[in-house]
Amino acid sequence: MQTNKTLRLHHVNTPDAFTELVAALAANGIAVIEVATLRVGQRHIYRDVTVTVPGEKDVETLLTTVRLLPNIVVESVVDEVMRVHEGGKMVHKGRFEVTTFAQLREVYTPGVAKVCDEIQRDPSLARRYTNAGNTVAVVSNGSRVLGLGDIGPLASLPVMEAKAMFYGQLVGLNAVPIVLDANSPDEIVETVARFAVGFAGIHLEDIRSPDCIEIEQRLIERLRIPVMHDDQHGTAVVTLAAVQNLLRSTGRELARSTFAQIGLGAAGLAIATLVREAGAQAVLGSERSAAARTLAATRGIECVEFEEAVRRADVLCLSTGVSGLLDPRLVRKGQIVLALSNPLPEIEPADALKAGAAAALDGRSVNNLLAYPGLFRGAIDACASSITMRMKLRAAEAIAAAAKPGEILPDPLSKSLHAAVAEAVRAVAEARAPAAPLLVRR
Amino acid sequence: MQTNKTLRLHHVNTPDAFTELVAALAANGIAVIEVATLRVGQRHIYRDVTVTVPGEKDVETLLTTVRLLPNIVVESVVDEVMRVHEGGKMVHKGRFEVTTFAQLREVYTPGVAKVCDEIQRDPSLARRYTNAGNTVAVVSNGSRVLGLGDIGPLASLPVMEAKAMFYGQLVGLNAVPIVLDANSPDEIVETVARFAVGFAGIHLEDIRSPDCIEIEQRLIERLRIPVMHDDQHGTAVVTLAAVQNLLRSTGRELARSTFAQIGLGAAGLAIATLVREAGAQAVLGSERSAAARTLAATRGIECVEFEEAVRRADVLCLSTGVSGLLDPRLVRKGQIVLALSNPLPEIEPADALKAGAAAALDGRSVNNLLAYPGLFRGAIDACASSITMRMKLRAAEAIAAAAKPGEILPDPLSKSLHAAVAEAVRAVAEARAPAAPLLVRR
Repeated sequence: MQTNKTLRLHHVNTPDAFTELVAALAANGIAVIEVATLRVGQRHIYRDVTVTVPGEKDVETLLTTVRLLPNIVVESVVDEVMRVHEGGKMVHKGRFEVTTFAQLREVYTPGVAKVCDEIQRDPSLARRYTNAGNTVAVVSNGSRVLGLGDIGPLASLPVMEAKAMFYGQLVGLNAVPIVLDANSPDEIVETVARFAVGFAGIHLEDIRSPDCIEIEQRLIERLRIPVMHDDQHGTAVVTLAAVQNLLRSTGRELARSTFAQIGLGAAGLAIATLVREAGAQAVLGSERSAAARTLAATRGIECVEFEEAVRRADVLCLSTGVSGLLDPRLVRKGQIVLALSNPLPEIEPADALKAGAAAALDGRSVNNLLAYPGLFRGAIDACASSITMRMKLRAAEAIAAAAKPGEILPDPLSKSLHAAVAEAVRAVAEARAPAAPLLVRR
Repeated sequence: MQTNKTLRLHHVNTPDAFTELVAALAANGIAVIEVATLRVGQRHIYRDVTVTVPGEKDVETLLTTVRLLPNIVVESVVDEVMRVHEGGKMVHKGRFEVTTFAQLREVYTPGVAKVCDEIQRDPSLARRYTNAGNTVAVVSNGSRVLGLGDIGPLASLPVMEAKAMFYGQLVGLNAVPIVLDANSPDEIVETVARFAVGFAGIHLEDIRSPDCIEIEQRLIERLRIPVMHDDQHGTAVVTLAAVQNLLRSTGRELARSTFAQIGLGAAGLAIATLVREAGAQAVLGSERSAAARTLAATRGIECVEFEEAVRRADVLCLSTGVSGLLDPRLVRKGQIVLALSNPLPEIEPADALKAGAAAALDGRSVNNLLAYPGLFRGAIDACASSITMRMKLRAAEAIAAAAKPGEILPDPLSKSLHAAVAEAVRAVAEARAPAAPLLVRR
């Protein structure tokens, strides 16, 4: 993977020394991204020079190149990706500073006792007077992380921090990453159920299949706050949005299309289920596990052989984890192909297009970040006790609608996108069951 | 309890109307604290007027008073304490905003996979590249909160948020309040042990006795990060600091003093144990529970009858929860008396002094906020695997030393105090077992 490195170095204070450095890097195919001058001394200039190298193994080439230059001394090499994560990516602190004794007596004892008292008398007030009303827990045991597999809770924490940090930035919700040293569904369900009382939503992430299906289902039944496993439903919502826009861009519609899902793992099953609810003419599935096929059948998904699914599909979606699974010769002319496995897809989009597909995407384009912040924000704003199928459908519509002309999916960093998703989800949640307005005690 | 209320009101725009209001309030013994003018219209002026009333029941008097004034309309009455807590007291968000695609690819996929990989290979790197190295969990089940008793997890959350917010403000640590819907020590230990992997320390708070002793002990044995039940050890450290300064101010020293602890609940036992470790000549205890007496005996505390303890004590410390327990006639001349029960002490300090005590304090002065932030900061900085007796003793010394002349205890909002406590704790931790320096990967 291409990676940025920063060389902290000093070179003799002559015009030529820096030119030599840049020329030597260029000659070795290393691009300079950024230069910061830290200090100009009488004899030396101290700089941070950030460069892009094709991969980790090229760092040695980089260092050898620079060390051959007589006028330059490299002090250290810092990895830019690692530097971004240094110190952790979250901040958990007071919303304001307490600077006077009077404030201390309001925030802490004796004043806080009054807030406790009020909440004990009417627990719904916790939504208003604590963070339990505006904080999502991002929970994982690290048993299935990205393309890395079961790396355990601690090594998965950087991902949970990344997921959590976008809640604040994109929809103004607090989020707390919580990683669990727990493996069985029982342990995870019990643990989450115990700490959920202080949260407004439970975002499950990167939990292995099929455990994740059971864990999510049991928590949904047990808790009265939104619980969602993002790898299932976030993926499904964003995939549906992409499918809708791809169909539109090729002049077709879902109600007259056959959708085939290859791989009915947790994500595949969620995608097929949501696409069916969205009104596809037919939804086919292909999967080796008999248990998964049985589950899929209960959701109206017709399970067929791989070749049949590929042949009949107008929209072909693959989430098998098997890179290169789809032989380009099997692609039907005019088919829409979504090959979602990361880091390597079942077919390269370019190859699918070359083989006659009308449109093709891989997993990099289907970014869950498009869906989860707005889903939780909308559900929490509506005081919804769960994230329903209708909310997911409306979220997918809002995402699809937010794409600009020529885009399949919108910019995941757009705040107006997330506001639109949240609003769509809130509206459908409130239409279902109007939530009681929060009480204001006076 | 005295409480502040804010009247949002408007009155006719004449010089007299506001004077009438202030005069009417003053005539009813209601003090004006703050006036903010929100808008000056042609006919009306809109203001927030914050006043202090003696108690909740006086709010009716306040409203009746104001409603009798012909030129004033009260729009709403807001409780100032409740307002401070509104929206929750914590913020949990990203340490920076992600604004470009390049940054997104570093923070999130694909870049984050590299950080996960590195941590999987060397878990100690999590201290550096995640928040697991700088975040404390403030954990409670709400089973013994302030003077309120067992109010459950949700109603205890305002206290945990208050405890948590001071970590950031005073010592620059992140903190996350986590309240547990769990009652048995087994449940609490299992739950905390599962999520502890993502934290640098576990601050236990407001858990009923004797469960809290067992829970703390089992977590200390099981985890390799500092675990401390603040109601026990925070209280003990601050009490010892107060005792040392009270002895000094009366020209005595602990090594020549007899200390008596009345009430050997979790806090009392921790106080007596720490005072004994600090070198008191003799430590007596008085307690009705036979189990607590047995435990105290194993820690070198001589259990005697209440009257004997009171009679023999140079320093008499009470933590019984029984207000008015100590008859002033039992106070010995020159005795130092700490009556710690909240909200009402075993003896009012004024009564103890009148009865001949050399010095007297109640629980309001013994603020745990003096100890816990520095204890955790120092222990975490030193990579200590637990908070030891020596750390607590050094923390008490640092707190005592930070009091200005004439003060018994220092200002709990002083950052230099907390830096001094952290430094004292860190120094003794590193003296014990030098921690491996954090690895820097390049």
